[in-house]
This record gives sequence, structure tokens and C-alpha cells, in this order.
Amino acid sequence: MRELREAIQAHGVGIGKDVVKVDSFLNHRIDVALLTKIGQTIAEAFREDRVDCVLTVEASGIAAALTAAQALGNVPVVFAKKGDHINVGADVYTAEVYSFTHRTSFTIRVSRSYLSEGMRVLIVDDFLANGEAIEGLRSILRQAHAELVGAAVCIEKGFQPGGKRLREEGIKLLSLATVEAIRDGEIIMAGED
Amino acid sequence: MRELREAIQAHGVGIGKDVVKVDSFLNHRIDVALLTKIGQTIAEAFREDRVDCVLTVEASGIAAALTAAQALGNVPVVFAKKGDHINVGADVYTAEVYSFTHRTSFTIRVSRSYLSEGMRVLIVDDFLANGEAIEGLRSILRQAHAELVGAAVCIEKGFQPGGKRLREEGIKLLSLATVEAIRDGEIIMAGED
Repeated sequence: MRELREAIQAHGVGIGKDVVKVDSFLNHRIDVALLTKIGQTIAEAFREDRVDCVLTVEASGIAAALTAAQALGNVPVVFAKKGDHINVGADVYTAEVYSFTHRTSFTIRVSRSYLSEGMRVLIVDDFLANGEAIEGLRSILRQAHAELVGAAVCIEKGFQPGGKRLREEGIKLLSLATVEAIRDGEIIMAGED
Repeated sequence: MRELREAIQAHGVGIGKDVVKVDSFLNHRIDVALLTKIGQTIAEAFREDRVDCVLTVEASGIAAALTAAQALGNVPVVFAKKGDHINVGADVYTAEVYSFTHRTSFTIRVSRSYLSEGMRVLIVDDFLANGEAIEGLRSILRQAHAELVGAAVCIEKGFQPGGKRLREEGIKLLSLATVEAIRDGEIIMAGED
């Protein structure tokens, strides 16, 4: 998606070999017009997939999930919660997710009430790197006997294995922008996609 | 807001004397049409206030903040992060917030880059009870010398003191639905507002 690639090149900050900091428009400050366009672009790609529900993880996946759900005709969003939430209740599906960013594992939870057997679910997230978050969400979908129609991410780190693995499994995966490498602080993007 | 009051009465669950569980449409599963309407209603109330930025706290404030920002003409959203985020960096405004729900304090952080002197900021959140989150956000706005134009919350717990205190201070406060009490699991709503 051209607008997103341009935003990454104009405002993204490459740190070390693998951190792409996009705080200024994606996951701390939100460029609302850009996120609305991101949602529309995701919806176009999954228009024919009869999506019943968009599933993401709090917090930084919520904006893209919500705008995608709007553009898909106001299907509901469910966001998995991290850690212990006394308000979530005990009747939950859970999965363990290892975060390379925070170098720790955390539990994600989704109330059993909001996923049902056969429900057609689109996973949306801000980043795809090693794919740990998406694997956690897939585990929850399997527990619920819900159906994964595909996954859409704003930024794929092409130099980490999550995207390749999902494609090899035959999962329909939309990456709106792919970072190929970070070199001396410069973010190297893949071409048109 | 009629649609929100109806959703609370149809799907909200009152627990004990002070918990209003609205997981099924507001802060775990999101009713996207309802949230879009919530954003439009907030925007109508603050249309004349020349809002530069909508400020909220992750995670459950993000949806209403985003839809309000869309309806205000795509102004940016900034969401304060909770806890330690290695990606936020050190150059942040911070405030301590006590959560009655989780019975613990946590730190919220906003990068100094995203708030500037004189910026006209609307605070949006899902709940207003004791007002701790909003006070934390106000503290951050004071540190940034930004201007608070008002606050909008989806649900005010009228039996807790946050809303009264803000109104007494002369803050423009929009509560889209007010819960007056929880009695034997029943959620007692204030009338038309």
C-alpha cells in the first residue's frame, strides 16, 4: 500500500537490525486518515471471504482491526487481552505468546462467548515478524473451532520468518508493507506489492 | 446516547455494587457500528472546539478515540501506553494512575514528540468512575503545556465521584450514558441526557 510505504519511509525509524519504530503514525500516535485507508485496503482484499469477525490483540492491533471491520460492513472486532484481566472472567480461551520486543512471554485471552464454531475470522495486526502473536490467535481459533479466512498485517518484517511460514502453510496473508532490512538506521522496503 | 443506553441495558452485566461489564460490545468485543456512532456523537459535541488531537489510554479507549477522531475530520489520536514499553523511549511524559478495577497503580507514558504547547486536546475514554485515568492524562497535558478542550466518555458511573469533580472544575464533559446504580445485578441508568 503506497501511502503506508511512504509513511514508513518518511517517518519510520530503523533501530539496530530489527526494530522498525512507527510510533508517530501507527502504534502510539495514530494517523487516522492513514489507518482508515489501511482498513479499506484490508477489506478490499478480503471482500469475498465472508468475514464474520475481525480478531486482533490489544493494544496496537485495535486501530487497523477497527477500520478494517468498518470497511467490511461493520462486522464485530474481538481483541484478545493480555495478562490477567479480572473483568474477562474465567470462561476464556488462552494462548501463550512470546514477545521478541519485550523478551518475555505473556498470555492472551479471549472470552469463549465471542468466538463460535464455524465463525469466519480475519486476523489483523500491526506487525508480523516471527509470527508469535498470529500463532497465539490461531491457537485460540482452533480451540473455538472457528475458521481462519486469513490474516492482514500493516508491516511485515520480511527478514523474519513469520510471513514465510504462514504462506507455506497456505494461509491467505496480506502484508500492506514489507520491510526487507534495516541497515545503519535506514529502513529498506520491498517494492510494489 | 440512546443506542448506547440500549446496548447497556440489553447486553451489560452489573456485578456487585460497581462493576458494569460491557465486554460484549465495548471493550473486548467491539460493536463497530455502535462505536462509529459513538465517535460521531462525540465529534458533534466538540465540533466547535477546534480539536487538534484526541488523547486516550490503551487499550479500551482506542476504539472510541479513533471513531471520534475520524468524525472530527481525521485529527490524530495519541494513546498513552501503560507500563514499561521499550519502544516508547525515554523522552516521555508520565503519570501514575490508580486502577480501582485492578487494585493497583500503573504508569502511563506519552512520548514528548506527540503533544506540543498550545495543542487543543480532547480526552476520550470508555469509562469514567473515580476519574483516575483522566487525571493522569490531564497531568500529562499540563506537563506538555497543551490545552484540554474537554473530555468525552462512553459510560460514566454516576455513583462515583470522577464526573462530578470534573464538572465542578468547569471541564466540558460529555458522558454518553450514565449508570446511576447497580442493584441485584440490574444496571440502573440515568434518563435522557
